[in-house]
Order: sequence, then structure tokens, then C-alpha cells
Amino acid sequence: MTDYKLIRETAYEANMELPRLGLVLFTFGNVSAADRDRGVFAIKPSGVPYKELTPDKMVIVDFDGNIVAGTLRPSSDTKTHAVLYKHWDGINGIVHTHSTYATSWAQAQTDIPIFGTTHADHLTVDIPCAPPMSDEMINGDYEYETGFQIINHFKKLGYDHHEVEMILVGNHAPFTWGKTAEKAVYNSAVLETVAHMALLTRQINQQSPKLKEALIKKHFERKHGPDSYYGQ
Amino acid sequence: MTDYKLIRETAYEANMELPRLGLVLFTFGNVSAADRDRGVFAIKPSGVPYKELTPDKMVIVDFDGNIVAGTLRPSSDTKTHAVLYKHWDGINGIVHTHSTYATSWAQAQTDIPIFGTTHADHLTVDIPCAPPMSDEMINGDYEYETGFQIINHFKKLGYDHHEVEMILVGNHAPFTWGKTAEKAVYNSAVLETVAHMALLTRQINQQSPKLKEALIKKHFERKHGPDSYYGQ
Amino acid sequence: MTDYKLIRETAYEANMELPRLGLVLFTFGNVSAADRDRGVFAIKPSGVPYKELTPDKMVIVDFDGNIVAGTLRPSSDTKTHAVLYKHWDGINGIVHTHSTYATSWAQAQTDIPIFGTTHADHLTVDIPCAPPMSDEMINGDYEYETGFQIINHFKKLGYDHHEVEMILVGNHAPFTWGKTAEKAVYNSAVLETVAHMALLTRQINQQSPKLKEALIKKHFERKHGPDSYYGQ
Amino acid sequence: MTDYKLIRETAYEANMELPRLGLVLFTFGNVSAADRDRGVFAIKPSGVPYKELTPDKMVIVDFDGNIVAGTLRPSSDTKTHAVLYKHWDGINGIVHTHSTYATSWAQAQTDIPIFGTTHADHLTVDIPCAPPMSDEMINGDYEYETGFQIINHFKKLGYDHHEVEMILVGNHAPFTWGKTAEKAVYNSAVLETVAHMALLTRQINQQSPKLKEALIKKHFERKHGPDSYYGQ
Repeated sequence: MTDYKLIRETAYEANMELPRLGLVLFTFGNVSAADRDRGVFAIKPSGVPYKELTPDKMVIVDFDGNIVAGTLRPSSDTKTHAVLYKHWDGINGIVHTHSTYATSWAQAQTDIPIFGTTHADHLTVDIPCAPPMSDEMINGDYEYETGFQIINHFKKLGYDHHEVEMILVGNHAPFTWGKTAEKAVYNSAVLETVAHMALLTRQINQQSPKLKEALIKKHFERKHGPDSYYGQ
Repeated sequence: MTDYKLIRETAYEANMELPRLGLVLFTFGNVSAADRDRGVFAIKPSGVPYKELTPDKMVIVDFDGNIVAGTLRPSSDTKTHAVLYKHWDGINGIVHTHSTYATSWAQAQTDIPIFGTTHADHLTVDIPCAPPMSDEMINGDYEYETGFQIINHFKKLGYDHHEVEMILVGNHAPFTWGKTAEKAVYNSAVLETVAHMALLTRQINQQSPKLKEALIKKHFERKHGPDSYYGQ
Repeated sequence: MTDYKLIRETAYEANMELPRLGLVLFTFGNVSAADRDRGVFAIKPSGVPYKELTPDKMVIVDFDGNIVAGTLRPSSDTKTHAVLYKHWDGINGIVHTHSTYATSWAQAQTDIPIFGTTHADHLTVDIPCAPPMSDEMINGDYEYETGFQIINHFKKLGYDHHEVEMILVGNHAPFTWGKTAEKAVYNSAVLETVAHMALLTRQINQQSPKLKEALIKKHFERKHGPDSYYGQ
Repeated sequence: MTDYKLIRETAYEANMELPRLGLVLFTFGNVSAADRDRGVFAIKPSGVPYKELTPDKMVIVDFDGNIVAGTLRPSSDTKTHAVLYKHWDGINGIVHTHSTYATSWAQAQTDIPIFGTTHADHLTVDIPCAPPMSDEMINGDYEYETGFQIINHFKKLGYDHHEVEMILVGNHAPFTWGKTAEKAVYNSAVLETVAHMALLTRQINQQSPKLKEALIKKHFERKHGPDSYYGQ
């Protein structure tokens, strides 16, 4: 395994973070890591338990979903990853989980309202929930169309995938992405905790107002943009 | 212990998974593993703490509920296991737990609605809740009748136990089964997480619609049947 | 420390189980173990972190609440333990915790309804919640009166402390007891899980009916009485 | 690192307690420890993962928010800590987290009602939630103004920061403090469990009454003041 060593190891490490962060049961999740220069990504093999994973077992796939290297079958969600890498520049990691709280919001087909600064530290809008796909898309090339469902929902909302790095797919579950696979995993954990707190917030006060504009702007800009002052 | 070694070890390993997966408190659960050629199954002894279990302590019982080998008293739920093995072909493992979320749906005497793909990856219908048993059945051979309550509810619903591998018994708790004891334990964990997410889904949106038919079919067939493409 | 060795060690072991079972935060709980022949019990010292406990640090107190041996101040709840040992025969262990779900039912001043067999395996009635104490009792010898509040609520309900081994004290938290300290700790864990499931049951179905009489009787008698057949 | 050794180590140890107590995800929290004689405090560097922290990495800041020693950028919330140390005597530790339940009450802009003795063991009033700040304050020196928002809300309520050692900042998250950094961390954990139980209490009984005055007084005085008898 001299080839694709870096993305294999990156994808392996990022996949192993999912059970550590409590984001997956059994094999219900997958992470990929892309090498844009070579136009490929490494992704978890389908249905292999986390404790049996090794960097070698990662499957190398191009941005059209063709297997380039690897002996195992890649994640069944591979084509969704491929579509996102192909159509969205600047992302090098994608995560799909069925984490409990985020998936419940997806099942409820409800955007996660921006209720607090924990949310605004990461994005300035409600976390969007794409509607369930049409029967035509489902019966067609399902995982490929899932990628377009995500891209089209962002287009419709006018969102930039560099600024909003997460989405719920209605009735299904969340996808997150980022500049690195590590950042995409981080986004999945943030999404899960924000999803949990948003549910509790409404249970405490059904009329909880959303975060005011000034606070959204302030918190997002603390962590992002030219004047950010969070971190080292 | 040269005899029944394989099912003793299989049952032992499967029982030990229950506390690891957070599905049991103290001794509130049991797993059996069957050897259909010999017409027997190995089951956890009654009330023995998990940390004191060994393969040797598993009790060997036939499909009429008679003890064939073992020095300890078998699980008090043994006859329920026996009835299911006797009347349902093709299952080689059965699990009973009082896991928190699944048991709460059983106590609420409510089927778990199919709200998302996590559910549809495993079965295509609501997870059925059998009604509490009649007083006559309860005062008769209770655990034996519990087996028939399960079988009769499946008959009434027209469900195939090869396709739907889990049920709630009203006011009581869940039972799951599978081709292997390992698969039956897997089904218990899936049931628990699906039960958790279904409750949250309705808390987020009381009017959450069920999963559409095309998605149910798509996700179930990704993992099952001749055209499945999940796993290796 | 040759003296009271057995109850010191029993109380120590039982206290150490509380954090392992997730029933206490910091020092919010205490267990005692009695020696009825000598009319004393060993109890956790007040406010000492669990990781600093040793059998030697347990305080020996008589059934009137007088310190008999030990250099540390006993738990502030010591007099409640003393009253229960003095007035209720046959109990050799008492536990007090502020475990999350049981305490929430106590704060809600609500009995925990008997919704399922997990509950009926342990007691045949709703888990009682004693009303908050009168101002006179609170301003008097508070912890001593807490013991009487428990005893009087049982008298009023006509309950036998050998059959019902747990109570909630309104606005405060749960107490459990048993033939041994180990059994009392077991009861605290059972109470916590039953309290959790009862809340979820009502969230799933506000109209959840209570367990029918035949099931209550059946499950309780499986585990208790002359015809029990649970355990070894 | 001969200098500020004690507060660096105290701040380090207290910060490391946050993930152990389940109060932070990633870097979403910070603890400071003050040396009032020298008019400085040690605080966590901004955005550094807990597992990479060392006492050396703590940043030394004075009570006006100026960096005195340290090579890393301090927590983005540093000025809030500085304001509280400068204006409130007797506190030597401050904690900020985004712990799940406390933050959800903050997002719901709701005081946490005093429902039980677990709450009254620590404070005698509802846990206050300061309103979200004005746009002027947010757009000004935000973290500095957050400190004043806290101080002004206490003034308005007539609360003494020696008696009430915790607050929620509306839409944001909790702050706690204490005579030591260790005590401030303890208060954050107490707040989180009280926040969890208060939500559950209302879910069990929407009409749950608050704790009666005599019980509030009794429990607070068991642990505080000249006649306290809790602990050693």
C-alpha cells in the first residue's frame, strides 16, 4: 500500500472517530477523504465493523463513482460522496451518519432552528432539511440522486457550501462536509449536539425565539472570516 | 463439556454482548442459540449476573422446553424461546431484553411507526406491538403462551418471521430473533435505537409522516434480497 | 479496625456501587449496612468523595442515631437511616440517592405508575411518593422526621416494607432498602430505570393503561414467594 | 515556568475536569483560576483541544483583560472572566461551558425553577437567566459587555454573587464561579444536573409546584452558614 497512503490513513482515522464520538451504531456511518489533485477519494468499505477497519481496507474511488483501487466494495453511499466532490469545490472530507438526534430531525422533516450561540459559532442559518426525494429519483440511481437532492436544496436556498457545511436529508439522515475529513467529522458532532439542544430548547419553551441577528453575526465572525479571534 | 460446545459458546458470547451494548440492567435479558439438527438450544441460566457467566453455565433445552443438559435452572423465559424455535423455521437465535426505549413503546402498547431509513434498512413495516395476553393465558403456562401470543400476532398481521425479526409484547418488553444469535442481538440493538429515534421524531413534529413507499422499498432492498448491495 | 469489620466493608462496597451504576453525582448519595445483633449500622461519612472512601472511614451509629465508632461525621441523612432500622424489622441496608429520573418524579410529587413487567418484577403497586413534610417537621429534627414521613406514608397506604422496598420523598429524592445493603443498591438501580421508562411510556402514549392485575401477580410471583421460579 | 505555577496548575486541573464530567464537546468551555494578590488569572488558551493542554499553556491575564504572560492567545471569553474578577470580590475561579441541559434553558430564555432539594442544597432561588444583550452591547466589546450583563442582572435581582454562584446568559450558555476553580467546576456540574431534572420534573407534571420555603431554608443551611452540618 504505497499508493493513496495519505487519504487512506486520513479516511481511516476519521472513520474511527465516529464510534468514539458516539455518532454511529454498528456500521451506520461512513467518512471519505479526497485528494483533489488526483481526482479521487478514499472511503470506508460497506458494512465492515469499525474494529476490523485498517487504512488498507479503504476503497479508492474517482469523482464519477468508479472504483480505482481496493479489493472491498465501497460504502453503499459512495455515489453521494462522489457527486458532492465533483460539483462542490474546496471540500476534502464528507461524513454520513445516522446519529440519534440529527436523524430524528431529518425524520421529522424539520429544519433545526438557530436557537443559540453554539449553533451560530458554526453557521448563521437554520440547519436545512432537504425534502424526501421524488419516487423517480429514488427508483433511479438513488445514491447518485441523493447527492443532487443536497446540491439542489442548497441552490434553492441560495446557500454556499463553504459557509453551511451540513444538511439533513428528509426521512433519512445527516450529511456533513468540510475542508478536511477531520473537520467534516467535527461538523457531524456539532450537528448532533445542536440537534439535541434545539429539541430540549423547545421542550422547555415552545415559544423560544430564534437567536437575534446581531448575536448570530457576532458569534459567527468570532470564529470565521478576516476578523475572527477564536483559536490560535 | 465436550457436548453442545458450539451453541454454548455462541449463546455465551451473544449474552455477553447485551451489557456491552447497553441493552440490559443486571440480569434483565437473555439470549439463546439453537442447534436445529439436534433439536436443542443453549440459553442463559436464570438470574446469574453476566460477569459470572461461562459457556459451561449455559443450559441445554429441547424445543418442547425440557432440560437436556446443564446443572443450573434456565432463564424463566425459556418456554417462550422453545415455542418460537419449534414453530418458526430458520431462526437460530432469540433475544429478550428490557431495553429502555423499546420497553417503553411496549408499555405504551404502541407500534413503532416507520419514520426513516434506519428503520427501513431492517424492516418494511411498523414494529408490531402484540396486545397484552388474556388473563387465561397469563394464569396458564405463561411463558409458553407468550410464545403463542407472538406467533398469533404475526399470523393476524400476515407477517413473515423471516422478514420481520422483532416484536414488542404489550406491557412487557421486546423479543428479537435471527438466523444466528449474533444477528438476533444485532436486531435488539437496532430496535432500541429505532425506538429512541421514533420517540424523538414525534417530539420534534407530532405530525411526522411515515416513510414513503418508494424509500421503504429502496432501503430494504439495498440490504436484503437478490439485488442487495450493502456489505461485502 | 478489628471491630465492625463486616458492616464497614459491606457499607463500603455498597457505597462504591453507586457511582459505578451512575446513580450519584459527586457525594449525592449514601448507603448504610446494619448489624441487627449489635444494634448498629455502618454509614458513609458526610461529603467525602467516593474515590477517597475506605472501609475504615465508615461511621458506626446505633439505631437512635448516636455515633458509636468512627472519627468522621456521618452522612447528614444518618437519622433517617436510624429511624427506619429501629422501626422496620428485617432490613439490613438502606440507600439514598438523588438519581436523575427517580428524583424528578419526587420533584413532580407524583407516584410512578406501574406500566410494565419490569416494574411488576419488583413490586405490585405504583412506587409511592410521600408528600413534602410539614413546616413543623422540617424545622424540627429534619432528618429524623424524614424517617417518620416515610413510615407514616407506608402506614397510610397499608404497605408492607418487606414487599415494597422503595419510596420517593416529595420534592426531595428516593430512598430504598432491602435485606442486605447490596439488595438496597439493586433496588435503587431498578427504581431509576423504572422511573425513566415510566416517563417515556407516557411521552409515547399519554393514555397508557396500567398493567393488568393478572400480569402484576404473575410477574411478582415469578420472582417472589413460595412458587417463584426466577434465579437459582 | 517558575512563575504563576500555582494558578497555571489549578486552571489546568480544573479545565481537565470539564471533559471528565461530560460538560464539554471539543473545546466548548473554559476555566480560569485567579491570584487576587497579584491581580491576575490563568485561563485556557483559545481553541486548544483538552488532550493537548498543559499547565504551561495556560495564559496569564490581568483583571483588565491584558495578557501578562503566555505565548498563546487566551480564550475568546477572557474579558468576561476579567470583568467578573474585577467587580466581584471573593471569587477565584470561573467556568464557562455549553453543557447540554443548562445551555438549552439559556436558549429557552427561562430561569430554572427551584423544584427540589438538590437545587436548594446549592442555592435558594431559581437559577437566573439574563436576557440576551442589546445590539449595542453585542456590537461593542462583546465579551467585556457579557460580564456586565451578568453583573447587572444580579444587581437588578438583588442577588449576592457569594450566595448564587451560577447564571445563564440568554441564547448563549451558563457561567459559574466560586471561591476556587474547583468549586466553580463543581457548580457547573451541579447546574447541569439540576437543569436536567427541572426539565424532567415539568415533563412528568406540568403543574409541579416549587419547593416550599421551609425546605429551601433547611437544605441550604445544612450545607452553608454557621449551623451547617454537611461534610467534614
